[in-house]
Amino acid sequence: MKILVLNSGSSSIKYQVFEIDDRETLLAKGLIERIGLEGSELRHSLPGGPDASWGKAVPDHNLAIGEILSLLTHPRLGVVKELRGIEGVGHRVVHGGERFAESVLVDDDVHTAIRDCCELAPLHNPPNLLGIEACRRLLPGVPQAAVFDTAFHQTMPQKAYAYAIPYQMYLKHKIRRYGFHGTSHMYVSREAARALGKPVEALKIITCHLGNGCSVAAVNAGVSVDTSMGFTPLEGLVMGSRSGDLDPYVPLYLMERERMGIPEMSDFLNKRSGLVGICGKKDMRDILEDAERGERPALLAVEVFTYRVAKYIGAYAMAMNGVDAIVFTAGMGERSAAIRSRILSYASFLGLDLDEERNARGETILSTPGSRVAALMIHTDEELVIARDTHRLITARAR
Amino acid sequence: MKILVLNSGSSSIKYQVFEIDDRETLLAKGLIERIGLEGSELRHSLPGGPDASWGKAVPDHNLAIGEILSLLTHPRLGVVKELRGIEGVGHRVVHGGERFAESVLVDDDVHTAIRDCCELAPLHNPPNLLGIEACRRLLPGVPQAAVFDTAFHQTMPQKAYAYAIPYQMYLKHKIRRYGFHGTSHMYVSREAARALGKPVEALKIITCHLGNGCSVAAVNAGVSVDTSMGFTPLEGLVMGSRSGDLDPYVPLYLMERERMGIPEMSDFLNKRSGLVGICGKKDMRDILEDAERGERPALLAVEVFTYRVAKYIGAYAMAMNGVDAIVFTAGMGERSAAIRSRILSYASFLGLDLDEERNARGETILSTPGSRVAALMIHTDEELVIARDTHRLITARAR
Repeated sequence: MKILVLNSGSSSIKYQVFEIDDRETLLAKGLIERIGLEGSELRHSLPGGPDASWGKAVPDHNLAIGEILSLLTHPRLGVVKELRGIEGVGHRVVHGGERFAESVLVDDDVHTAIRDCCELAPLHNPPNLLGIEACRRLLPGVPQAAVFDTAFHQTMPQKAYAYAIPYQMYLKHKIRRYGFHGTSHMYVSREAARALGKPVEALKIITCHLGNGCSVAAVNAGVSVDTSMGFTPLEGLVMGSRSGDLDPYVPLYLMERERMGIPEMSDFLNKRSGLVGICGKKDMRDILEDAERGERPALLAVEVFTYRVAKYIGAYAMAMNGVDAIVFTAGMGERSAAIRSRILSYASFLGLDLDEERNARGETILSTPGSRVAALMIHTDEELVIARDTHRLITARAR
Repeated sequence: MKILVLNSGSSSIKYQVFEIDDRETLLAKGLIERIGLEGSELRHSLPGGPDASWGKAVPDHNLAIGEILSLLTHPRLGVVKELRGIEGVGHRVVHGGERFAESVLVDDDVHTAIRDCCELAPLHNPPNLLGIEACRRLLPGVPQAAVFDTAFHQTMPQKAYAYAIPYQMYLKHKIRRYGFHGTSHMYVSREAARALGKPVEALKIITCHLGNGCSVAAVNAGVSVDTSMGFTPLEGLVMGSRSGDLDPYVPLYLMERERMGIPEMSDFLNKRSGLVGICGKKDMRDILEDAERGERPALLAVEVFTYRVAKYIGAYAMAMNGVDAIVFTAGMGERSAAIRSRILSYASFLGLDLDEERNARGETILSTPGSRVAALMIHTDEELVIARDTHRLITARAR
């Protein structure tokens, strides 16, 4: 079954096509950027096959998905002869609120529920919906699934998701911890269990998704019991341009002192803070190079970043009263041995013994055979999970 | 040497008098409440001696300290014959900024520096200064010391005190983690080392000050390396009416949705959140009773409170790459076996073995002899530390 996976952002759409049967095969991938802006750009590639990239005006999401579909049926660059070769579409949806604890096929009711969550994710859910609506028009009758970033974390107990603010605000505005990157945390926790040769139900795993956004999750017996992102993706770890955890009085103090309004402060915390706030750069590769040259702000950024990850690992070991494995994934988590090594340098008291050579080579298991707590590096693949869930839901419905 | 210790708040002054020589003896204690308000109240007591309490109009701090001094020279309730019997005054000062890493004798320069810190603690430093100024007038020539809540935490490394916001905001507004309750964290870490029969320099200690305000500190080899309160006392643990940690976007979201201004939001986070926000009550004794009767909001408040303390303990064990002792102090920390037991239930994987009987009895050492990590309950005594520091500074100057 050929599944199209779509990740629709406000001005970009990423897509992948998988063939899911006994095996799982990636057939094509690509992205369109600067939708609705001057100078839209398209990139498309087939694994081991031709690559293409070109500029073309793409005024809206409807036309962008039209472009993608015509590429997918293109004689040389395509993967199907006709559009009906695409048997399902899986959409990444950022916020499923408290309604969705797992992936679902989209019907009118689900569509409404996703729209109801727009208040909680005003930057993300509306473009996700645009993608769903365009596919409904352009691929009528093809089943579509919604796979939520928040769903995996819906198993968190209330002690982990409740904030200590008036309970009324939870009832009225649904203010609570939701957590994000759920698809990634779920996938890498299961892959880690597989790599360790143990059932995920028997393990206490801490997963560190360190990419553009960063979050840590505590996965006990396969279910998320806590995670560092909260009501929004601003909370938790330090990120490229997001502050992460902060004395909640600081935004108020700064708004008063710097005469900033709510939108300016949101911008300040989301776009001008984090690594870029500390040292002026947001790409960890550049920052590590600067730090190696002895530049103090870059070194501070590395120290703050890794120290905060380490503290979350300790917090979640307590949350689960133990930890069997610590997993790194996403951009920095997969590619930076230096970051992993710095984080794990705090954890030797837990009995974690890092094998620096395995770490430098980026193997799956990074710890020594005798290590009491395992450390792993797992490539995340959120698109594959979306394709799998879509395939599973369609197959189940057909039965 | 007789030392008067003063803790001057905005509308109350607490005081104690110590005799410090080979021994340390409490001679008298008391407080004046509702200074400058209708119906001021005074309470005064001598250990094992007479108690007194009465109402009397006390319009300002100057007159309040005058009242205290006349009580201290009172024939029956007093502790000195004449005012010159008081040889030193120690003041609790909440915020010493980055200037003060230890206690100091107050001169004009120090006075100015404390005033400069008023911006950072607008509710606390001004009344602290009123106390200092009144004593300068009423006890001319008597040396006065300032003992800062922030001083002990000035040893924190930058990775612990830096927030991930633009560095410029640290330089311009001094926005960083300061931490509070420093006098208490210092005192109980040293007392814990003494109780364990080891030098504090050889220990990694996590101190949990759980009182009206709550904070945790990581004390490595005797120095504070991290603490949960931050730029203000709002950050960190859940407290009676303070939220503690919160997604920094939540205040912005609520200000927009509920049309609150900065002062209303500050009030919301400091006075209407925390335990009282979750369950409507702020005294943990009442909350525990309600929870035992099966009231869900009270149980949630207990669970959130203890879970967050446990997570900080885990975080600080990572921060120090190990932990030898966990210390509980202040109101809840000293008196609630149930709270201690719930918190430590998360820590058995660290090798912490709680002796429930010792815990129920509130002994100093709460863990079993074989426990790999020790748990202790230590009565805090911030006033004694202030008296000791004052005595030490005066003695050193005289040499």
